[in-house]
Amino acid sequence: MSSPIVGILMGSESDRAVMEETAKMLERFGVPYEVIVSSAHRHPKRTREYVQSAADRGIKVIIAGAGMAAHLPGVLASETTLPVIGVPLPGSALNGVDSLYSIVQMPAGVPVAAMAIGTHGAKNAAIFAVEILALADPELRQKLADYRADWSRS
Amino acid sequence: MSSPIVGILMGSESDRAVMEETAKMLERFGVPYEVIVSSAHRHPKRTREYVQSAADRGIKVIIAGAGMAAHLPGVLASETTLPVIGVPLPGSALNGVDSLYSIVQMPAGVPVAAMAIGTHGAKNAAIFAVEILALADPELRQKLADYRADWSRS
Amino acid sequence: MSSPIVGILMGSESDRAVMEETAKMLERFGVPYEVIVSSAHRHPKRTREYVQSAADRGIKVIIAGAGMAAHLPGVLASETTLPVIGVPLPGSALNGVDSLYSIVQMPAGVPVAAMAIGTHGAKNAAIFAVEILALADPELRQKLADYRADWSRS
Amino acid sequence: MSSPIVGILMGSESDRAVMEETAKMLERFGVPYEVIVSSAHRHPKRTREYVQSAADRGIKVIIAGAGMAAHLPGVLASETTLPVIGVPLPGSALNGVDSLYSIVQMPAGVPVAAMAIGTHGAKNAAIFAVEILALADPELRQKLADYRADWSRS
Amino acid sequence: MSSPIVGILMGSESDRAVMEETAKMLERFGVPYEVIVSSAHRHPKRTREYVQSAADRGIKVIIAGAGMAAHLPGVLASETTLPVIGVPLPGSALNGVDSLYSIVQMPAGVPVAAMAIGTHGAKNAAIFAVEILALADPELRQKLADYRADWSRS
Amino acid sequence: MSSPIVGILMGSESDRAVMEETAKMLERFGVPYEVIVSSAHRHPKRTREYVQSAADRGIKVIIAGAGMAAHLPGVLASETTLPVIGVPLPGSALNGVDSLYSIVQMPAGVPVAAMAIGTHGAKNAAIFAVEILALADPELRQKLADYRADWSRS
Amino acid sequence: MSSPIVGILMGSESDRAVMEETAKMLERFGVPYEVIVSSAHRHPKRTREYVQSAADRGIKVIIAGAGMAAHLPGVLASETTLPVIGVPLPGSALNGVDSLYSIVQMPAGVPVAAMAIGTHGAKNAAIFAVEILALADPELRQKLADYRADWSRS
Amino acid sequence: MSSPIVGILMGSESDRAVMEETAKMLERFGVPYEVIVSSAHRHPKRTREYVQSAADRGIKVIIAGAGMAAHLPGVLASETTLPVIGVPLPGSALNGVDSLYSIVQMPAGVPVAAMAIGTHGAKNAAIFAVEILALADPELRQKLADYRADWSRS
Repeated sequence: MSSPIVGILMGSESDRAVMEETAKMLERFGVPYEVIVSSAHRHPKRTREYVQSAADRGIKVIIAGAGMAAHLPGVLASETTLPVIGVPLPGSALNGVDSLYSIVQMPAGVPVAAMAIGTHGAKNAAIFAVEILALADPELRQKLADYRADWSRS
Repeated sequence: MSSPIVGILMGSESDRAVMEETAKMLERFGVPYEVIVSSAHRHPKRTREYVQSAADRGIKVIIAGAGMAAHLPGVLASETTLPVIGVPLPGSALNGVDSLYSIVQMPAGVPVAAMAIGTHGAKNAAIFAVEILALADPELRQKLADYRADWSRS
Repeated sequence: MSSPIVGILMGSESDRAVMEETAKMLERFGVPYEVIVSSAHRHPKRTREYVQSAADRGIKVIIAGAGMAAHLPGVLASETTLPVIGVPLPGSALNGVDSLYSIVQMPAGVPVAAMAIGTHGAKNAAIFAVEILALADPELRQKLADYRADWSRS
Repeated sequence: MSSPIVGILMGSESDRAVMEETAKMLERFGVPYEVIVSSAHRHPKRTREYVQSAADRGIKVIIAGAGMAAHLPGVLASETTLPVIGVPLPGSALNGVDSLYSIVQMPAGVPVAAMAIGTHGAKNAAIFAVEILALADPELRQKLADYRADWSRS
Repeated sequence: MSSPIVGILMGSESDRAVMEETAKMLERFGVPYEVIVSSAHRHPKRTREYVQSAADRGIKVIIAGAGMAAHLPGVLASETTLPVIGVPLPGSALNGVDSLYSIVQMPAGVPVAAMAIGTHGAKNAAIFAVEILALADPELRQKLADYRADWSRS
Repeated sequence: MSSPIVGILMGSESDRAVMEETAKMLERFGVPYEVIVSSAHRHPKRTREYVQSAADRGIKVIIAGAGMAAHLPGVLASETTLPVIGVPLPGSALNGVDSLYSIVQMPAGVPVAAMAIGTHGAKNAAIFAVEILALADPELRQKLADYRADWSRS
Repeated sequence: MSSPIVGILMGSESDRAVMEETAKMLERFGVPYEVIVSSAHRHPKRTREYVQSAADRGIKVIIAGAGMAAHLPGVLASETTLPVIGVPLPGSALNGVDSLYSIVQMPAGVPVAAMAIGTHGAKNAAIFAVEILALADPELRQKLADYRADWSRS
Repeated sequence: MSSPIVGILMGSESDRAVMEETAKMLERFGVPYEVIVSSAHRHPKRTREYVQSAADRGIKVIIAGAGMAAHLPGVLASETTLPVIGVPLPGSALNGVDSLYSIVQMPAGVPVAAMAIGTHGAKNAAIFAVEILALADPELRQKLADYRADWSRS
């Protein structure tokens, strides 16, 4: 099996149910990925080391799902120049508005690409990663076109 | 001069002041781009034709800024499999929350990468586009690393 | 049976339960309608072709229900000068505030008439369509007056 | 000069600056209108009498702009079966979210068509009224088509 | 039994469960009341006639519960100079923020006293009415003091 | 001159500009009042002593304006059974939503009557106080009727 | 057993389920505490007397959980110079945004340290209290370091 | 001069105007402090090294001001067990709600003490730090009592 080119991170085990949608969508496109549970606040060193070595290990796109004060995508983005996609997760009393604002309102200099709150965003994070990867991979581009065509027909 | 590889779209002339920041940032990285004023609602045909032909004309990433019920990024995304980055613009009575929600809450299947509301988002859209392009361009990757290093030192 | 004069559109099958209320209310007034599931993002071409031909096929009012970044009503409005009524649907983490803002905050030039979020809005969309149609249909106007009178008595 | 077929109401003189945009847009289409300042709370009787007699006097569409707890459109709708279009006005500490919710969240049975907050909404209220009137007026329909075509070209 | 001095109004039967709390609290203080289901939008005439005659029939305080675009308290206040207390009810997609804004943001000239959203507000509306009535009723004032003392001890 | 029957409290001198509107409106109705600057947080003892002695000194209604985490009305209400009217003041980054929620969301048992945010609310607090006082003062009731009639004519 | 050095207050019995998390966390660190149910509005005197004597009785940190218009933390802070930590509780129609704003938006002079809404905040209030206490207690500081290390490993 | 015991951090030079209020307040109490401009995203290493060595260098309390997706306080808290106080700064299109949610909604395990948005919060952060430090410093405790007494008299 190929080595992973997308890293899916999440802050805690409780985020796995939603972020599984990201993994499933990548599988559909045959994009190899790895899943890491590593919190920006709980495991700052592990999280940092992961992202600092990601590019060298062949990772091209990073997807991070996080809830509440969702710092994970921004913290990852501050340690890499790989594209980082953030998925705000609901589950708090504010139902994801807190994580959306914590992910999307990044100051100039360190971008994070925010997706929709929850499952829709988790799926779209994978598709967006595929759109990025397809720029240099004609075969993947074709798969993407086929996916869209299939999807539009259904 | 090289032909453009990033397309910057905006819904109206009044969006230009903010979206100029996107253009300036791309220039800093030497990434050729084009700027198009074309509203999703006002010029649906022109907007559609632009995006449908974009990939063939060599465009690799699309950046769209829009205010109020900001449909432009989503409408573009529905007609291409190129990565589309959306910049919510303030200016309405709701000061950009309307455009943020209209851009970021895309349903599964057609992703848009949302940036922060306003100037910060306009700059980050360019940097994020560079991060995408740098995946296949080692020189650009180096520029990005230098930019980060310079920026962190200042 | 008469040919439809109201087109009810929705972005996905999951919207049908709420938008059924629109259909039921139109039936109550004897107004012929058609129901189309066609997403602004998933089926942009089919959606566009539907609305571009709607007036010629005798459609007089268009009602569109959509959730999340609810672009459907605005996209329809950009392709027709028929009155377009938008029904924001809940169901996302933001519970319909996202769809409300995406529908109601249309920029000047392409109006969409926004109704309340969810079932109340779905029913009112039908009644509002009847109010429009009744301007040129004295019989319908009478039915509307009777409906109001009955309703007020209950 | 023709007798008015659109009634533009507003709650107070301070709303006139924004609602003038409605009037100007109707003039552009040659649609005769009247402007009435009559508050739902300050002049309940006058407001009621106006709307109860409106249909008989030839009014076909009612447009009401109101700020804060914007009850005017809903109060008008409760006394007529003519289509009522509501324009939420900013100006309060809540900057129009209060008037938007007070206008759009009408319960089933008495619809109000909500437009965007402020000037954009005021213009679109007029265009939406024209779209309604054009259903029975081929000349107006043509003007609307021309307006859209002109506008799209600019 | 004494004739009612507090009128409890609500827009629909579905509001009764919450507004029952108002009635129960008034009973606890021995304050005679009447309960009327009458919508501002559905039964504008009945609602108006009720409130216009209320003072003459001995009503001293009016309590109105309403959800969504909650116009009832404001409409009542526009027809009387009796104190009107408004209870915002949840139940819509916006969970009562819509009714809170529609009740509390009354323009200068026609006050409505807003209580908390839902059950807490329904109870407090009754206590607030008792506080008003107690100003001219030493016995009621004593009951209120006893209630507070009991309550604080529990 | 008569001794005051309404107490107007505010948390700080900076609230005076808005709360002056309350005083002016009470003067218009000839209702004697007193103005006290006393913060719930800064002068808890003075605030408490004021309200505990208010009823004995002839005060019948208390009006309190406060901004940010606006505890003043609630704190006053916890120490008296006189009616307490709260005016949320803007001026914070949240522009008065914070003070509105802090005033209106009182738990069952200790009611506060919330008015609109800012100047409108400050004026209405006075009118609402007059409505309360007029229940036992036919002359004041007449003034109130005259005020409404004048106001409706203007 | 040692006398308590942390006071946990809550406005009502219904807050106990969430605030139990605070107690459990303090137990984990061996920090003696006491739990008091005392509402700012219902038991203002008891609440005041508790906090005024707290420092003399050896209390060093106060933690207060409250919902709706959550005045308890601010009222406590106005009567002591001990650090007061506030935990906003959900449960109202506004789901804790009301309590968050009522707790965090304290005016300059009387600080309250706000934690996250609900269970997360209840746990963190205890940990934050331990961080404060550990400044003068090397053993506790070590426990805190161990807790963090354990937690990061898990 | 004594070595600093409070560290004031801010993400950028543009935050200095507000955070100066924190410094001024600490000076008033004679608490030595240091000011560091170090962004969580721009200078992750410098920020980390600062906080990791802070306790050893004698820092007892950390205060961090940040705007937009305000990760700085949470990132600091993830690297120390010293108490971290966060000040949300306005300035973005969302006017500080984004920074408030990003600071206050920390998940269980890594607490941050949130203050009010802007200047009020900046002042209170200093006073709260003094309250913490005063637990082990009777002289400071007296100063705090004097400050409160003075303040309450004014």
